[in-house]
Parts: sequence; structure tokens; C-alpha cells
Amino acid sequence: MIRKERVDRLARELQSRGLDAIYIGPSSDLEYIGGLDTHPDERVRGLMVDKNGGCFAMTPLLYKEEIVNAFGDVPFYAEWNDHEGFTGAFRRGCERLGLLGGRVAFNDGVRAVDMLAIRDAMNIQLFNGQDVLALLRSVKDEEELDNLREAARMIDAVVDKLFLFIRPGMKERDVVKKIPELLEEAGCTEISFSPIVASGPNGSMPHYGGDQRVIQERDVIILDLGCRYKSYCSDTSRTFFVGEPTREQREVYEIVRRAQAAGEAAVQPGATGQDVDRAARAVIEEAGYGKYFFNRVGHGVGIAVHENPYIIEGNDRPLLPGNVFSVEPGIYIEGKFGMRVENLVAVKSDGTAEALNKTTREMRIIR
Amino acid sequence: MIRKERVDRLARELQSRGLDAIYIGPSSDLEYIGGLDTHPDERVRGLMVDKNGGCFAMTPLLYKEEIVNAFGDVPFYAEWNDHEGFTGAFRRGCERLGLLGGRVAFNDGVRAVDMLAIRDAMNIQLFNGQDVLALLRSVKDEEELDNLREAARMIDAVVDKLFLFIRPGMKERDVVKKIPELLEEAGCTEISFSPIVASGPNGSMPHYGGDQRVIQERDVIILDLGCRYKSYCSDTSRTFFVGEPTREQREVYEIVRRAQAAGEAAVQPGATGQDVDRAARAVIEEAGYGKYFFNRVGHGVGIAVHENPYIIEGNDRPLLPGNVFSVEPGIYIEGKFGMRVENLVAVKSDGTAEALNKTTREMRIIR
Repeated sequence: MIRKERVDRLARELQSRGLDAIYIGPSSDLEYIGGLDTHPDERVRGLMVDKNGGCFAMTPLLYKEEIVNAFGDVPFYAEWNDHEGFTGAFRRGCERLGLLGGRVAFNDGVRAVDMLAIRDAMNIQLFNGQDVLALLRSVKDEEELDNLREAARMIDAVVDKLFLFIRPGMKERDVVKKIPELLEEAGCTEISFSPIVASGPNGSMPHYGGDQRVIQERDVIILDLGCRYKSYCSDTSRTFFVGEPTREQREVYEIVRRAQAAGEAAVQPGATGQDVDRAARAVIEEAGYGKYFFNRVGHGVGIAVHENPYIIEGNDRPLLPGNVFSVEPGIYIEGKFGMRVENLVAVKSDGTAEALNKTTREMRIIR
Repeated sequence: MIRKERVDRLARELQSRGLDAIYIGPSSDLEYIGGLDTHPDERVRGLMVDKNGGCFAMTPLLYKEEIVNAFGDVPFYAEWNDHEGFTGAFRRGCERLGLLGGRVAFNDGVRAVDMLAIRDAMNIQLFNGQDVLALLRSVKDEEELDNLREAARMIDAVVDKLFLFIRPGMKERDVVKKIPELLEEAGCTEISFSPIVASGPNGSMPHYGGDQRVIQERDVIILDLGCRYKSYCSDTSRTFFVGEPTREQREVYEIVRRAQAAGEAAVQPGATGQDVDRAARAVIEEAGYGKYFFNRVGHGVGIAVHENPYIIEGNDRPLLPGNVFSVEPGIYIEGKFGMRVENLVAVKSDGTAEALNKTTREMRIIR
């Protein structure tokens, strides 16, 4: 259902930015406002919201039933058929809301090609709507926090079971395939992203996408996984060791673990995303591994697995109570191994961090 | 690896359209040109190809290893860090190729918000690149056809096993979960889209997304599923009956089956996508069920599960040898049931259809 109070807050946000409307394609924004959980494809569908809280829904006939089921009571469903294309319906909706010639933002659920088709078919001023909803979404209410806590609890349970499951001789893929099964035992049927199981030298790619390597004795394994519970995501990483770690591996792991703890501890009243990034990064840099940590320390999590606030150099906005984000420093040594430890944390009303993940961050050795 | 001969054909296509370059984000186009199989996200990556066959690759440092592994020998990797953002790197690449002020198309792998960030950061004329690669990609060579045949063979095997597996009392979800398992037995580990298992009244939504209904005696069940083999997709639908069908169900199924056969038979030298759509649709309309068939008859299939040529009213371009597309008429009666039969077909050198799917289209009754 369209969440009326969220539409009203969005309308005020549009007014404060001098925008007439925002067109929201399939995206976390759309799920937040209208409960529609779907992905962009070649059939344009979404919701236009104007600065007075007026709406129309772009409705390919093929998806009409689903869209009406999701949105419920929308004043105008701008319907279109495969053979006529979508721009006529878009124009009819804009005419109803008086948006032709107006300042319309497009969110990140819209494809460039569709926006260009709109530009070529009618007179509209195009604005970047990437972050229009970001601030609204980044402050979670109690219902949202409870869903995030539950999603974290479920994925922690999977991590603990994986520690008992993984053995040398398995393929990374065997571990990847086990995750949905363990997740279902934990009561959840949806992953929030394709899990990463990166063993040995594969661990040096923070977003490793393969799964064919056979896990071996003396491997370091990064697990990065998450689930979705009532639309809200979890995202956690742990690093396991197969057999006795080398001295170097022990040292590096201790640096990563301390960096992660330093990031969480830096969540204090008035702290910014940059402050948290710097606090975690400083531990790694001071240990001489700075060049092996080349990405941000974290990202917000909510309906999307990556959203505001970003925990990154340059983000000088103070964190707010209700923000939820990852703290996930790592050390990635090409050709050798990678290690990462990641918790989600929520900013409490006193400005400090509540870790949503509870599973141990101590070294875990598979024997 | 970047496919040099495809880049050269693309460069000629750009010249013929009066474009200076095309920027290709994560998409089937990018997989076709550069072998990179990934999805758009907030980290901008992709390939610019200019009208002389020059290139640069947008390379977030976090993905560098994967991008270099995929593309291989690219003259310029325009690298960027999370904290600096991507537009500077994009500008450096454009400067190298002399594209500032030029006419640059953007393909369907680019998000509107990223294109607007580029527009706001430098002088570039934006063009809709949705179909620049469509014609090149729609004509498959023998290697591509072999991959498509194999993908179809694998999914046919899954359909046949599902007929033996499905029983009343199961949830739709039990069937959905069985598909990857059967697919793996068939030798394939990747689905091409989330399978649809729509039972009873759920069948009336052609793109039904649920999975919670319990399959019952007298249900009609639509299965729509596909896999990917060496990047190439299969996509097939069959309709199963649980227990003895009613007379109406038998009649409707026969109409759908005849419509599907008529679509395949309409693939003849000089025939257009529209001709095939009309041939299948006519059978349904003449039987009095026209209002229950409200979408196109088919779509091309290749690296993408939806691509050119579209089998739809208004597509008056003749089909070409090497085209591969679905023929999938259906009848969808809200609140009651839906039925669909779908084969992929390839246009042979004589202009007629080779059906890639071989599993029976006769009525199948689960007893």
C-alpha cells in the first residue's frame, strides 16, 4: 500500500528542494513509499509523486494486477500496452498533475534510456533524484529497526552453522548452496544479495563473484552474506581459517578485528560517516597495511543493502539516531588472501552504536 | 575479453547513426561486447566505444581485478575511488577519446541518475542508445545458436522431470525450489530468470511473482522457466493439469496450443514480428478469447532473456536468419486460471522456424 505519511514527508522534501515532482521507478525507494518490490526492466512502471502529495502510477497492463495489489488506492493508473509504448501514458499522468514543463526528478530505479525517451516525447526538465528519498529512508523507526534486528539474528545463525559445515575439499559453491538452506532453517526465505564465499587468494577481491575453487587446508575464507526479513536486509562478513593460521595471518586478522571494533567505537554523538571510516582505517594504516584496504568502511542498510549513510571519507554529515550501517574494514593482499569482519550497527538515541550482529568476531579456526 | 570484431561492427553502426560514441553500462550489451556479466549498481562501470573503435573502461578500484579479468586488453582504464566519485574518471576517458561536446549514446545498462550526474559535470550531448546494439545482437552466429540449443535442451529436461515431480498438496514454492536442483542434474547451474509456478487463479497473472499457494486437485498450473548456458538463455512455458480437466479447460488449452503452433508456422521468408504476433493472436480472437490475451506473442532471446526481435503488433521489420525468439500466446481469465505454451524458435537460413524446445506441447495431466 502507498504509505500516506511517507508521501507527505516526500512532498515536503520536494518543496524544500524546489522540485515539482519525483518519478520513482522500481527501487528500494518505491518499496519504501508504495510497497512494490520489483526490479527495473523494459516495461516502465513506477510512481510519480508531486510536491502536493498527488500521485500517478505507471502501469503496464501486463503488471496491472500486481501493481494495484501493491499500491492500493492511487488516484490515477496511467495504463499502457506493450504495442503502444509507455510515453503516452507518462504524458497523460503528467498532464493530470500539471507537470508538463515542470521540474521533475528521477530516482535510481529509472533507466537512462527510458528517461531519454520521456525527454524526447515531451517537455520536462530533468533533475537528478538520486538522494531525494535518501535522508527520509536513512532514519529508521522502531518497526524498521525490529525488522533489521531480526534479519541480523537470522544471518548470525547461518554464520554459526556454516562454521560447523565448512570443511576442506568442498567447493566454494557447496558453501554458497548451503546458505539458502540454513537460512530457511532460521525462518527466512530471501537472501539480500548473492553470498560471497571467497577462499584462499580469491579473498583478495572484496566483491569476488566466482564459486569454483576447492577449499584447502591453510585457506583463509571470507564469507559475506545477508537475508531479507519483511523487506529489511542483513549483511554480515566473517573470516574463517582452515587449519592453523600462519603468524602473518594471525597478525593481519588481529588488525582487521581491531579496526572493526574501532569503527564501532567511533559511533558517538556528533560523529560523521567520515569519522567512523577514519577510525577504522587508522588502525590498518598504522599497522602498515593501508595500501591493502582500498574501499570504504561501510554503507547504510535498510530496504536496500547499500543506502545512506555511507561510511566514507568526505561524508561529513553527523550520523543520526535510527541510522543503520555496516562497519566492515578489510585487508586484501592480491594473490595471497583477504580478510574482512563486518557488523551492522544502529545508532541509538544516545548516539552510540548498537551492534545488530552478535556472532563472535574472535578468530574461528576450522579443524 | 573485448570482442574486437564486435567492437568494429559497433563502430560502423555508430557512424551510420551519426553518433560519436556509446557508453555501455552493465547489461547484456556489455556481456556481448566485453564478456562482463554483471548488474548495474551504484558503482559506475562499463565501456565507452567510439566510432573509430576506440575504447575506455570505467573502473571502480573495488572491481578492478574483475574488470581487467573480463575485458583484457583495453587501451585506458578510467579508474576511480569510492570517495572521489566517478565523474572525474568519466571525463578523463572522454578527453582521451575527444568526446567532450560530442554526441554520446547511453545504453540500457546506465541508470538515469548516473547519466544526469555526467550531464551536470561535463559537456556531452545525450542520446538514447537503447537499440544501438540490438540489431547486431539479434542475429546469432553458429556458436551462439549452439549455446541456445543446449540451454533449451537443458530446460526441456527440467520440464519433463517437473511433470513427474508435481503433486497436489505441494506449495508452488516447493516446485520453484526443485527447479535449480533439476537444472543442476541437467548440467547447468544458472537460471535465466526467477521461475514462475502459477497455480489455479494465480495463473491469470502472466508474470505472477508469488509462491505460497498450495497446489490442489483440478488446478491448472503454468510453469515458466529458463536457464543460462555459456551466457545464453532458455525460456519456456508449459501448462500442466492436476486431475481431469474440465471441458472448458480442454477447449481453452486446445486454443492456446493451436495459437502457439500458428505462430511458429507463420515464420516464413519475409515475415515480420507483427505477422507472427497476428497469426497466433488470430486463433485466440477467432475462438472468442481475444480479451483474455493482452500481451505480445513473444520476444527475442539471447544473452538477455528479453531482446530483439519483439513479436508484437507494430514490429514490421522482416525476421532474419539467426533471429531467436519466443512464441508464447496465452489465455488469462482473472480469478479462474491461465494457460500458456511457449517455445523458443530460431529462424533458419530458409526463413522457416527451428523449434529449440522439443518437449511435448500436448496436454499433460498429473494424476
